[in-house]
Amino acid sequence: MKRPDITTILGILIGGGLVIIGILLRGNLGEFLDWAGLMITLGGSFGALLVFFRAEDIKMVLQVTKQAFVRSDEDVATLNERFVNLAQKARKEGLLVLEDELDEIEDPFMRNGLRMVIDGFEPDAIRHILNTELESLETRHQLGQNLYKTWGTLSPAFGMIGTLIGLIVMLAHLDDPDAIGPGMAVALITTFYGILLANLVFNPIAGKLSVYSEQEVHKKQAVIEALLALQSGINPRLLKEQLKAYLSPAERERVEEEERRAREEKEEDVMLDV
Amino acid sequence: MKRPDITTILGILIGGGLVIIGILLRGNLGEFLDWAGLMITLGGSFGALLVFFRAEDIKMVLQVTKQAFVRSDEDVATLNERFVNLAQKARKEGLLVLEDELDEIEDPFMRNGLRMVIDGFEPDAIRHILNTELESLETRHQLGQNLYKTWGTLSPAFGMIGTLIGLIVMLAHLDDPDAIGPGMAVALITTFYGILLANLVFNPIAGKLSVYSEQEVHKKQAVIEALLALQSGINPRLLKEQLKAYLSPAERERVEEEERRAREEKEEDVMLDV
Amino acid sequence: MKRPDITTILGILIGGGLVIIGILLRGNLGEFLDWAGLMITLGGSFGALLVFFRAEDIKMVLQVTKQAFVRSDEDVATLNERFVNLAQKARKEGLLVLEDELDEIEDPFMRNGLRMVIDGFEPDAIRHILNTELESLETRHQLGQNLYKTWGTLSPAFGMIGTLIGLIVMLAHLDDPDAIGPGMAVALITTFYGILLANLVFNPIAGKLSVYSEQEVHKKQAVIEALLALQSGINPRLLKEQLKAYLSPAERERVEEEERRAREEKEEDVMLDV
Amino acid sequence: MKRPDITTILGILIGGGLVIIGILLRGNLGEFLDWAGLMITLGGSFGALLVFFRAEDIKMVLQVTKQAFVRSDEDVATLNERFVNLAQKARKEGLLVLEDELDEIEDPFMRNGLRMVIDGFEPDAIRHILNTELESLETRHQLGQNLYKTWGTLSPAFGMIGTLIGLIVMLAHLDDPDAIGPGMAVALITTFYGILLANLVFNPIAGKLSVYSEQEVHKKQAVIEALLALQSGINPRLLKEQLKAYLSPAERERVEEEERRAREEKEEDVMLDV
Amino acid sequence: MKRPDITTILGILIGGGLVIIGILLRGNLGEFLDWAGLMITLGGSFGALLVFFRAEDIKMVLQVTKQAFVRSDEDVATLNERFVNLAQKARKEGLLVLEDELDEIEDPFMRNGLRMVIDGFEPDAIRHILNTELESLETRHQLGQNLYKTWGTLSPAFGMIGTLIGLIVMLAHLDDPDAIGPGMAVALITTFYGILLANLVFNPIAGKLSVYSEQEVHKKQAVIEALLALQSGINPRLLKEQLKAYLSPAERERVEEEERRAREEKEEDVMLDV
Repeated sequence: MKRPDITTILGILIGGGLVIIGILLRGNLGEFLDWAGLMITLGGSFGALLVFFRAEDIKMVLQVTKQAFVRSDEDVATLNERFVNLAQKARKEGLLVLEDELDEIEDPFMRNGLRMVIDGFEPDAIRHILNTELESLETRHQLGQNLYKTWGTLSPAFGMIGTLIGLIVMLAHLDDPDAIGPGMAVALITTFYGILLANLVFNPIAGKLSVYSEQEVHKKQAVIEALLALQSGINPRLLKEQLKAYLSPAERERVEEEERRAREEKEEDVMLDV
Repeated sequence: MKRPDITTILGILIGGGLVIIGILLRGNLGEFLDWAGLMITLGGSFGALLVFFRAEDIKMVLQVTKQAFVRSDEDVATLNERFVNLAQKARKEGLLVLEDELDEIEDPFMRNGLRMVIDGFEPDAIRHILNTELESLETRHQLGQNLYKTWGTLSPAFGMIGTLIGLIVMLAHLDDPDAIGPGMAVALITTFYGILLANLVFNPIAGKLSVYSEQEVHKKQAVIEALLALQSGINPRLLKEQLKAYLSPAERERVEEEERRAREEKEEDVMLDV
Repeated sequence: MKRPDITTILGILIGGGLVIIGILLRGNLGEFLDWAGLMITLGGSFGALLVFFRAEDIKMVLQVTKQAFVRSDEDVATLNERFVNLAQKARKEGLLVLEDELDEIEDPFMRNGLRMVIDGFEPDAIRHILNTELESLETRHQLGQNLYKTWGTLSPAFGMIGTLIGLIVMLAHLDDPDAIGPGMAVALITTFYGILLANLVFNPIAGKLSVYSEQEVHKKQAVIEALLALQSGINPRLLKEQLKAYLSPAERERVEEEERRAREEKEEDVMLDV
Repeated sequence: MKRPDITTILGILIGGGLVIIGILLRGNLGEFLDWAGLMITLGGSFGALLVFFRAEDIKMVLQVTKQAFVRSDEDVATLNERFVNLAQKARKEGLLVLEDELDEIEDPFMRNGLRMVIDGFEPDAIRHILNTELESLETRHQLGQNLYKTWGTLSPAFGMIGTLIGLIVMLAHLDDPDAIGPGMAVALITTFYGILLANLVFNPIAGKLSVYSEQEVHKKQAVIEALLALQSGINPRLLKEQLKAYLSPAERERVEEEERRAREEKEEDVMLDV
Repeated sequence: MKRPDITTILGILIGGGLVIIGILLRGNLGEFLDWAGLMITLGGSFGALLVFFRAEDIKMVLQVTKQAFVRSDEDVATLNERFVNLAQKARKEGLLVLEDELDEIEDPFMRNGLRMVIDGFEPDAIRHILNTELESLETRHQLGQNLYKTWGTLSPAFGMIGTLIGLIVMLAHLDDPDAIGPGMAVALITTFYGILLANLVFNPIAGKLSVYSEQEVHKKQAVIEALLALQSGINPRLLKEQLKAYLSPAERERVEEEERRAREEKEEDVMLDV
């Protein structure tokens, strides 16, 4: 299940809002709007971005950016539970019975892997194919991060180019001393744009994409390990222990709490039975 | 046992105190208080941080920060001694007798590992599970460090954004020459905030978290090695030698000093017996 | 097939065009033309580049730069199809029959590899030779990227050297206050050149070369894997699955869509036959 | 044998002396003494250092710093000769005879390793223990380097904080134009302190510690290899060849020159005998 | 065969010449000569370099620098041909016959390796010894590069120290407004020296040393592989194929062209014979 990542939106709103309030406290917003400056900073850096990357990567930008605003909800704990259930079923009724589960799996990576397990591919081949796929995934993820990181480097640079243009023009016409101040003010606006865009939008989005990428790779590594253990006919209890290692302490505590409670209830049942 | 890490607190007090004294020697503190500037620098960079990381990571910040102010006291030497004792016991009475020791172990990592040893898991499985857990731990630790390092990069950037706002407003109204000085003074304050916060608080805390993380990973690597040696029924004397390699020269000297003294006392006893 | 990479050219045109429009909106282009400044920035940094690299590397620059403006069209999907066909042919009629295909292969890396497969070289020798070749290729690619990255570092540095020259000369003759402004304007132009060249030309070209290099290495890794699988007499269906791991999700979807359609048509044929 | 490292002391004296002469040529030293500024730069950055590292690491600083001013003299060539002698002795009279040599070995790493060889530990255990010890050593060395590198980053930052304080105070009281110059002069002094300390003291000491660390690790790697070869009863001639690989070309030439001379003398003896 | 590397010298002449022309176009050279400034920038950074490195490394500087101006001519293609000839000879007449070739080999690395092959050392021992030697070589090379890279960082820093000295002195004596300009001009000269030295001399020389180091390591890796293949009695034709992987495409094309021509001539001979 996917739902919007509120922090990404909230962060931009808070950061941008505080900067606007800061401007309003000292001057007025109008002085900070300069379409020519925005064109140099944002448009110029986008032009350089077109040189940096391929056409298809630029198209991917929009798709990739969406990911920073949306989050997937299935956590590793739910995933582990699912695999322990699969392992129990496979132990009792054989691997072929898992065929019925295939359609319920949304994640194509996991579905593809499970299908190979059922089809009886060699464990080494499965590991190799899934690892190659995971590496391709990481490479694609890194491309998205690189694109925003690069934009985060280019936008202050083009901001400075805009400022240099403003300064040079202003300095070349120093006859009118009254024009110095406003000239410099206009010149500095592109630097302001460049640094703000880099530090509130481009770099943080690159960061969020990187955090999500790590999370997904971590989950997929657990999937690979679980699939291979499943194929080897692992004891579900050992699989549970193995997969626990992928949990954060908070998740692990929750899982162990649930286990304890389940055991106690069982024991109570047993005692009541007696 | 945990106790407060005095150096972290002391360092911030000393660094901050000296800066304040420096201010008092040259001007007065009032000129350095600017709520709007603090809002842009600290609030704006926090907004960008919300874009960078996930909501749950931001929550972890407070918990993680506490770790930089608190230190664990069990050192590697004590740990080694403990394992040598466990090894002696296991050699004499078998691994199952260690079950009684399980409840005395506070560290869940070590307790979990010892339980797997007692339960007779395969050595390779134990190593694999504990290593995966250790990697998860490192990943989590790095998240905390990254968060503060990122804040340490963002806060001077937002300080500069504040300064640019101040400069642009000031330069756009250059009519009153008397306002230039104070205007620039106010503009520079956010840069001052940004650099001070980054270099006295954010970056150093990231550093302390990294030092503690390395220390814990080092200790846990010794635990993994000791647990596997324990399971293999290692000679306690060899285990002692193996674990010594994890000690710093100071610790090792202390340990060897104690050994020498113990041996001498024994020899004296023998001599007295004779 | 090779065709021009429009984004590279478009990017430089857009970025450069927006900067020129920005200049025209504020002043006039004539103020931004300074042959002496261009000589220091571009010529000086090229001189430093001659110290940095060997004569033959400098010659390679032109050849390498062309690659950033031209793109190869054979994608991994087409490549995979080709290898699956080769595998089917080899399974039916033996490896030697592939000799006829050799002349149709344009890529010398793939042709050389297939020739070794047909000649019956040991798999380990083939892997070793092709990997060494791939590493040599990567090293050569990195040289091209390094050269432009280095130029991207040198050009702002020489821009600053030019600005320092202008400032020092201007400051040494401060008698005429009217000369201050134009003097500083001229001084700043080299910094403008240096930053613009680095961020619109040198660094982005280094980036594009790096993107193309990664793409080619990725494709060649798929070739190595496919060649070795071919030699081992792999089941074409498994090879297809293995090579799919090298596809991006978009390519994979397209391929799977085609497969589904092909299967359905077959089924329809079967049904019509019945 | 240890003796003072003259270059470290000489370097600081030369660098510092030239800066002082440079000051004297332009102004007078008194203008560059500002106790409040030194307090902010050196004291403030030391405070941040306390947050960065643990109390025991800070204590280690003094001990570590000493190492940058003192150098050990036993070179790899002498070490190799020693091991070839040990190997010859061990081949003739067995490993146990080396027990007598133990007390003559100063380096605890080598003594500890040789003791394990004599005690008949498994080669894999010896390699594992010594490698773990070597890694611990590297980690400790890196801590010392990190501390100085960190100080080298913090001191210009606190220098800039001092300058910002001075600028803000000066700008807030711009009434008296005569105070602008001296105010800015005082403000810039902390930046001067910060950059000078970082580039003449902190960063170079970190560099020297790193050079010595690499040298020691290199030597200890040769020790590990030699110890294991010793245990395996290696031919002393092969050991000599193996250890030669650790020598620099200058050392190697010297060693081979000595060998040639020794051989010639032998041959002359033989000829005289005849 | 060694011959001067013209690009290194040419690059410094071109870069330096263009800077001087740039100066002459705007002012006169005399304003850019400041012995005190040169002393602070070059002498001060050299002092810091003495702290950074050991006395023997500083001595190595001169020797190392020479390498950036001299280039070795034996390319990988010639080397490969040589080894294929050795392999043919060894196949026909045995490895011992190669003893006669030993004296003709100039490169001590290759001669030493071939001697071990003839002496019948174990392949693993040969690989281990040569790899250790290659690592030592890389470490030494990196030292030279590090030294120049470090100087390239220190020289702008000391340039800035010189500028700060000039600014502080000038600002402390702001009474005479006519002295401001020339004072700042003199102050900026050290920054000019520092950036020019770093970007035209120190960093580029570090780069050239790194390019030559990579080239030599690449060649020596081919030597190691060829020596071990020689010992294993490899088929000269396979060795030729293996070593081709170390060639650049240009070299490879040339070699294959020669092969084709040789083959055609042979065929012509055969046809003429018929």
